[in-house]
Amino acid sequence: MANSPTGDSVLDRVVRVLESFGDGAPLTVSQLARRAGLPVATAHRLAVALLAHGFLERDPDGRLRVGVRLWELAARAPRALGLREAAMPYMEDVQAVTRQHVQLSVLEGDEVLFIERLSARNAVVNLSQIGRRLPAHVSSSGLVMVAFASPERQEQVLARPMTAYTAHTIVDPDRLRRALAEVRRVGYAVSVGAVHLDATGIAVPVYGPGNEVVAGLAVVVPSNAQPRQHVSALLAAARGISRTLGAQLAAPPAERLSAPHGQPA
Amino acid sequence: MANSPTGDSVLDRVVRVLESFGDGAPLTVSQLARRAGLPVATAHRLAVALLAHGFLERDPDGRLRVGVRLWELAARAPRALGLREAAMPYMEDVQAVTRQHVQLSVLEGDEVLFIERLSARNAVVNLSQIGRRLPAHVSSSGLVMVAFASPERQEQVLARPMTAYTAHTIVDPDRLRRALAEVRRVGYAVSVGAVHLDATGIAVPVYGPGNEVVAGLAVVVPSNAQPRQHVSALLAAARGISRTLGAQLAAPPAERLSAPHGQPA
Repeated sequence: MANSPTGDSVLDRVVRVLESFGDGAPLTVSQLARRAGLPVATAHRLAVALLAHGFLERDPDGRLRVGVRLWELAARAPRALGLREAAMPYMEDVQAVTRQHVQLSVLEGDEVLFIERLSARNAVVNLSQIGRRLPAHVSSSGLVMVAFASPERQEQVLARPMTAYTAHTIVDPDRLRRALAEVRRVGYAVSVGAVHLDATGIAVPVYGPGNEVVAGLAVVVPSNAQPRQHVSALLAAARGISRTLGAQLAAPPAERLSAPHGQPA
Repeated sequence: MANSPTGDSVLDRVVRVLESFGDGAPLTVSQLARRAGLPVATAHRLAVALLAHGFLERDPDGRLRVGVRLWELAARAPRALGLREAAMPYMEDVQAVTRQHVQLSVLEGDEVLFIERLSARNAVVNLSQIGRRLPAHVSSSGLVMVAFASPERQEQVLARPMTAYTAHTIVDPDRLRRALAEVRRVGYAVSVGAVHLDATGIAVPVYGPGNEVVAGLAVVVPSNAQPRQHVSALLAAARGISRTLGAQLAAPPAERLSAPHGQPA
């Protein structure tokens, strides 16, 4: 890659430019230069090239914004639109039953990246947003994906400082380790008031073609509801999504659910 | 921008690499090099850099695919996720009423790029897909966005060769010009069997903060249904989306709908 005098590559600078649109709001070239830490002339030259490819666009006021062409190319990410397409019919079913939030996410490092979310009007407060992240330790989707991740990934999450979003957020590595073991035992994660006191997340794993966990499917419901009533709907939907993705489902995950209650699988 | 011996910039090559994943399927480096028209060594070097930034990922088999990190950055495109977020509640309402396909699109050059689509099981055949394009002249969304676009944009679409998808597709510039005038007169577009004989699209304009048309909202229903029954629901939903986007709606678009029938506005 061609390097600038300061040693960063063109690609590094492109990434910094794109990352500067953190909140999606349009920027002038000088605002962009400041956020990206680039000289105005460099930012301008890069913006012109990105505009030519549609990676940036001008808004009606002439300011720069992320271009829909970039979204078009990025939509081909199998873990974004491909996953979403497989999941959408099942997510709609779960939403019709729960009438709250249903969300789909993937694990990126030690964070949960939300790919899709369906919500109902008057649903409970929900801090997760499509295209945004939450630390894995606070969200039920994060707990379920970390619980079924490689030991290395689990240790990575356990080693990081954990921010308390509420008094219920797990911030202690030993407690998190026990919580992850419990998730593996029962096959789902419940996170009561860990992101916001009023909201409880329930999440189950979604499997890919190699039977690895590729996503988390979750509902977010009011903490004063009975969250576990939604587990069976989530497990059934996650089976459908996993099958659509090509997973070979051997034992029904429902066995895990009913086993602790002594019901036949 | 730094140029290669053949004169293309790093950014050009990045774009070609990303465009090579046209169907979203994972590629080996040599497949990628062939599709992007790059030497294998160049493709490999570029892939390593793109992997480092998460713009590409490796799938479980080690092949390359578009990375979810690129999707995360691209999701900040106001004409993608911003538009979609504003539209989603209204699209869900329209879908609940029509029980067919509801779709949201933007105009890119002389093509329609589909941003969002909600579908029902057993809905009619529909060739439009999220993140994919159709030529503007075949789709009702395209007709409505071109009808309200600048004269330059209209002439651009009228000047291009028009592919016939079915015997009903408009392929004659004069006929298209008359169709666009009719769309402006009634305020919506109907495209009967122009993409697929069994499917009819009905589309209305969505307005942005400067009262310019920024998107098309459409339903796709069976051609043997009465498509115009959905116009009022679409117009009402488009008003809601436009208001959410900051448009100043002066005269209710419903006037346009009812006027030809002699009903009071």
